[in-house]
Amino acid sequence: MSDVELGAFDQAIADAMVQAHGAPGGLPGYLGIRFESLTAGRLVATMEARRELLTPLGALHGGVMAGFVDHTLGCVLYPLMKRGQWAATTEFKLNYLRAVQGGALRAEARVLAMGRRSAVVRVEVTHEGALVCAAQGTLLVSDPPSSG
Amino acid sequence: MSDVELGAFDQAIADAMVQAHGAPGGLPGYLGIRFESLTAGRLVATMEARRELLTPLGALHGGVMAGFVDHTLGCVLYPLMKRGQWAATTEFKLNYLRAVQGGALRAEARVLAMGRRSAVVRVEVTHEGALVCAAQGTLLVSDPPSSG
Amino acid sequence: MSDVELGAFDQAIADAMVQAHGAPGGLPGYLGIRFESLTAGRLVATMEARRELLTPLGALHGGVMAGFVDHTLGCVLYPLMKRGQWAATTEFKLNYLRAVQGGALRAEARVLAMGRRSAVVRVEVTHEGALVCAAQGTLLVSDPPSSG
Amino acid sequence: MSDVELGAFDQAIADAMVQAHGAPGGLPGYLGIRFESLTAGRLVATMEARRELLTPLGALHGGVMAGFVDHTLGCVLYPLMKRGQWAATTEFKLNYLRAVQGGALRAEARVLAMGRRSAVVRVEVTHEGALVCAAQGTLLVSDPPSSG
Repeated sequence: MSDVELGAFDQAIADAMVQAHGAPGGLPGYLGIRFESLTAGRLVATMEARRELLTPLGALHGGVMAGFVDHTLGCVLYPLMKRGQWAATTEFKLNYLRAVQGGALRAEARVLAMGRRSAVVRVEVTHEGALVCAAQGTLLVSDPPSSG
Repeated sequence: MSDVELGAFDQAIADAMVQAHGAPGGLPGYLGIRFESLTAGRLVATMEARRELLTPLGALHGGVMAGFVDHTLGCVLYPLMKRGQWAATTEFKLNYLRAVQGGALRAEARVLAMGRRSAVVRVEVTHEGALVCAAQGTLLVSDPPSSG
Repeated sequence: MSDVELGAFDQAIADAMVQAHGAPGGLPGYLGIRFESLTAGRLVATMEARRELLTPLGALHGGVMAGFVDHTLGCVLYPLMKRGQWAATTEFKLNYLRAVQGGALRAEARVLAMGRRSAVVRVEVTHEGALVCAAQGTLLVSDPPSSG
Repeated sequence: MSDVELGAFDQAIADAMVQAHGAPGGLPGYLGIRFESLTAGRLVATMEARRELLTPLGALHGGVMAGFVDHTLGCVLYPLMKRGQWAATTEFKLNYLRAVQGGALRAEARVLAMGRRSAVVRVEVTHEGALVCAAQGTLLVSDPPSSG
């Protein structure tokens, strides 16, 4: 994957995003997602599969995993865009590989391909070193509404 | 789709699930998902895209939609299974069709195919009558660990 | 789905495509795909699951179904675009619902959403009235390289 | 990915499959797919994007890529199954990352997770060293109808 051509990487944006995820709001806050590192084309995030996020049967709710995947997938691109541009996830697909009953989750999002108007991102979630979820999806990159 | 062969429908399970979703816990509770109706092969659920579930840019967080989809996709099958069986979502894919800025969401999950060991389900989410998300995924059906 | 806003429909393009698929070349020709009708946002195509397209075990090769899906998914948009624009499939997902052992296949591709730059399409393949494959995917719409 | 637990690897099955793909029939034959190597949890296959497989616009038909992906995805598991078992692809998703205008394609299918009843496989297709297609899908593993 070393041959993916990425745009310029904006370290200031990356730093701000990692810092903001010390205490995020909304769904990322509810899930407790933290950004561990955000480098060119690669975002590592973590969260805890705390009791409240399990189903009555004791397994992590699939929607929690899906939300974790969506969030990392949607954020990895930001430092690669020009100021004013924004990226929106248009689709993704995930496979749940194993049930998770608690403990730390680690998601790694990687940009597989990046064009002028879209990018494809892969997300892998691991738990105690084992792959528990594999996903890939597409982001559409938009220019600011008024580019003046 | 009228030719999908479904197993026997368990009305008591369906009633219990709809009632439990008057005040669900965990992620479904955080999202505020309510089950409006659960009939043979079809589940209708609703939730409100309240302010806390929007991103800082004012659009519904994709992970909220993904969690809503996962939850309805995973629950539609329960009244169709034999007592003791359980179903686990193994994969799904979704396309986000339009941004949502607030208001009521309605998900309809329908069983497209049902076999002895797996089922395929489609989920459509609408907002003010417009389709905003389309998804489809697979559930694996398991027999109880000790069937004695 | 009645609320999908589609662009202007170009009947001449549609007619030309249906006619060309009386004897297509390349993969569509090998598969024997025929276009039965192409109207605004909806394409119906057929093909025969002839013996050569089955696996040694006697079931239709999944790649045949995938090729059939890809082709109808990618063609439904043409009559809806402005002259000079073109559409490229960027991703799709499919679920195989039943094995097919021969006979006629019918694919129906429908546009679920259409924006300025992308469209989402659903494809359903039926065999003797039963749904055998369900797919959905995304097309990116491009303007001609030199729009002068 | 080094922690995926795979079943016993059957070298005789693998050898037979590689040899059979010197001159396969059906769709794999039409596409010209060759198996370069088939080891535990990993299949490498190649094909040529010959002129006949391009669209009138000169790009590889997406259905060709989808067929190539489906075939490698569906074959990687065979040497890992017990004699008599068989595996059927139930779903997959792919993202097309770049257009291909000719030349050699190389697909690598890898087993991401393998359970008693299902397996998840990733396929990456490269062209001149660049990733041109990324896919992932699910296989259901079946025991022989009469296991007597």
